Amino acid sequence: MYFCTMEAEIITIGDELLIGQTVDTNSAYLGQKLGSIGISISRKTAISDNESAILTAIAESQSRCNLLIITGGLGPTKDDITKKTLCTYFNCGIRRDNSVVEHLEKIFAQRGRQLLDTNLVQADLPQACETLHNEVGTAPGMWFHEKNQIVISLPGVPVEVYHLIEERVIPKLKSTLELPIVEHRTLVTLQKAESLLSRDLEKFEKSLPPALSLAYLPNFNMVKLRLSQKANSKQELIIDSYFDKLLSEIRDDVFCLGDKDPATHLAEFLIRENISFTTAESCTGGFVANRIMQTPGISSVFPGSIVCYANDVKISELGVDPQIIENHGAVSEPCALAMAKGVRAKFNTQLSIATTGVAGPNGGTEEKPVGLVFIAVSTDTQTICKKFRLFGNREQIIQRSSNAAIWMVKQVLSIPV
Amino acid sequence: MYFCTMEAEIITIGDELLIGQTVDTNSAYLGQKLGSIGISISRKTAISDNESAILTAIAESQSRCNLLIITGGLGPTKDDITKKTLCTYFNCGIRRDNSVVEHLEKIFAQRGRQLLDTNLVQADLPQACETLHNEVGTAPGMWFHEKNQIVISLPGVPVEVYHLIEERVIPKLKSTLELPIVEHRTLVTLQKAESLLSRDLEKFEKSLPPALSLAYLPNFNMVKLRLSQKANSKQELIIDSYFDKLLSEIRDDVFCLGDKDPATHLAEFLIRENISFTTAESCTGGFVANRIMQTPGISSVFPGSIVCYANDVKISELGVDPQIIENHGAVSEPCALAMAKGVRAKFNTQLSIATTGVAGPNGGTEEKPVGLVFIAVSTDTQTICKKFRLFGNREQIIQRSSNAAIWMVKQVLSIPV
Repeated sequence: MYFCTMEAEIITIGDELLIGQTVDTNSAYLGQKLGSIGISISRKTAISDNESAILTAIAESQSRCNLLIITGGLGPTKDDITKKTLCTYFNCGIRRDNSVVEHLEKIFAQRGRQLLDTNLVQADLPQACETLHNEVGTAPGMWFHEKNQIVISLPGVPVEVYHLIEERVIPKLKSTLELPIVEHRTLVTLQKAESLLSRDLEKFEKSLPPALSLAYLPNFNMVKLRLSQKANSKQELIIDSYFDKLLSEIRDDVFCLGDKDPATHLAEFLIRENISFTTAESCTGGFVANRIMQTPGISSVFPGSIVCYANDVKISELGVDPQIIENHGAVSEPCALAMAKGVRAKFNTQLSIATTGVAGPNGGTEEKPVGLVFIAVSTDTQTICKKFRLFGNREQIIQRSSNAAIWMVKQVLSIPV
Repeated sequence: MYFCTMEAEIITIGDELLIGQTVDTNSAYLGQKLGSIGISISRKTAISDNESAILTAIAESQSRCNLLIITGGLGPTKDDITKKTLCTYFNCGIRRDNSVVEHLEKIFAQRGRQLLDTNLVQADLPQACETLHNEVGTAPGMWFHEKNQIVISLPGVPVEVYHLIEERVIPKLKSTLELPIVEHRTLVTLQKAESLLSRDLEKFEKSLPPALSLAYLPNFNMVKLRLSQKANSKQELIIDSYFDKLLSEIRDDVFCLGDKDPATHLAEFLIRENISFTTAESCTGGFVANRIMQTPGISSVFPGSIVCYANDVKISELGVDPQIIENHGAVSEPCALAMAKGVRAKFNTQLSIATTGVAGPNGGTEEKPVGLVFIAVSTDTQTICKKFRLFGNREQIIQRSSNAAIWMVKQVLSIPV
């Protein structure tokens, strides 16, 4: 325990990030994980697979902070030069790590693939680093610790980053650094615009002491609110009383507590309460069910569901009366209600969700424009339908529809936050 | 036309990016779009909503290049300070832009919402900038042009970034700069590991002249290969002959040409050839259908589909013989074959895809471990099934299963690249 840092930087290496063929999800993950142990990221820099760009970026970062995490550039192909460059930076040669060779032999045997020379190169590491063993991939992580500076280099594949951070980096950082405390409390709202929330919370925000801050994180028709506090000791923490105050200001708009996908919160409730559910989806094409079924264990309450684009399928599979479609059209309240009732009866579940609308970009009319969506929710005791006018492109309308459906289920089942 | 740049930088502003509650998709999009007009991104920097961090990052960027695009920090809430900081940087005051006020009045009336003072603030812009009108949101973009330096500031909401870049920024850049040529040719492979592709392409890579480069972009069991050339004139372009050579080296592994989601390529083929399809999905929970239905116009060939988690549903909805499940289990080749045939008959389509497997994290056994997936594809003339051993977590197994299913359909229908 001989030095203390609160700030770190991330450098991501790869032309594919700059040219935009890969979206960088690693650094968001790193921000979350390091934040959870009291290390905040002050800067992220993305640069190309270019030796001088890498050397410059590392040196610049080391002049600003004493913890740097580098991701990417460790694959077996020619465009990956991070490792060579780290040898130059730390002025050292290469060593072959036999424990990595053994690991490579094992995983290639498991996958039934031949171990090539290009793969074996991954066991060659700079002499200046400690090896961070990678159980789920072929490229190990590297830990450089010189004077009071730590540089960590990780591969770019997300699942390998998760593994190395959780199993190797975080335990090692905790045992090396004396860390300050950063606490966050997050809640998720649905169906209310950021500017309206901000107006409702004006007084609350003004009441916050300097150590606390509130951030708005909007995403489709969902806004996450994150309250943060930095402190030197646990005794200084006052975040919970302010979080309670925040909650009491906007209680009716809160979907759930924590930094959670609303679909996960709903799925966990259905599993816990053993409430079976199904969906009949037209405009959302199965997206609502798909979001909910991402949660492990969902199969105990989810027998299956129907995607019903065609009117024939609405009639034959869900028992929608053809007269309803003739009189009101498939994008209508009576059709959504009939779909919800029909699918609940078909799969014999306690809850059902039905969607029918115009997701676009084609198929809109003056009477039924792109973005018009009817959503119905049905249980043993009630079947309700709401009409929505959603905006955005096809993907956004589908995403917003699924959030609206999840919000309706919360109302119908009175799901706690 | 008084200066020429090939390199640009991006600065993204927002604590939510550093703390990791938002994944930055904008800068990947910006990399693609600017690349398409011959501007390459040499660096992306993410910083917090902090005046001095913003001022420092802008000054540093301007010392390295003469085009800078800033995203984020333009929302109506208190944590957004980009605009004020730009006034400081460009040493100017604020002006109210009346055309923006009119636009705000119009869109708030359309959405049936009250125009608040916090919203009106979005019409206040630095005097030093030209307004980039934002038709799809409330925060306009800003264009600063001093000496031979351009700084563009855009809001952070992705749909607004897309609009402003396509309708405002790219036309304005094209008319202001003399741009070099950067050409890319991309192809998508499925089901072959990066290291095996790299071995097959070793000779080809060595044969590339210095102006050309090849990048590997792996994502689940898909690898995109991108060949790039920079040139001063169209006459210098030789990329197409090398791309043909690349194609001929690995023809059997290529799924499609261009930087495309394989699901989109499949969907476009089905729509163009008017081949109706459906799916019966157990372990993938509707994800295969959901990927394919993202393509506009799909409703003409996609009547609907079934998610069948429960064995009961496989039996009652798809007509799977209960004996099959009793003798072989639901995760088996006979069950996948019966599901594919059953769903094709039910929806009367020309093509069907069925999936059954163990997505995990629970439910695996020694005989049927997590990652074991059977995928069947059925047409009028044949029904085939393949067994896969996929690795990764639940999400990855679902993603890999969908890629494997799409690959199988290509084989069965002989879909051209």
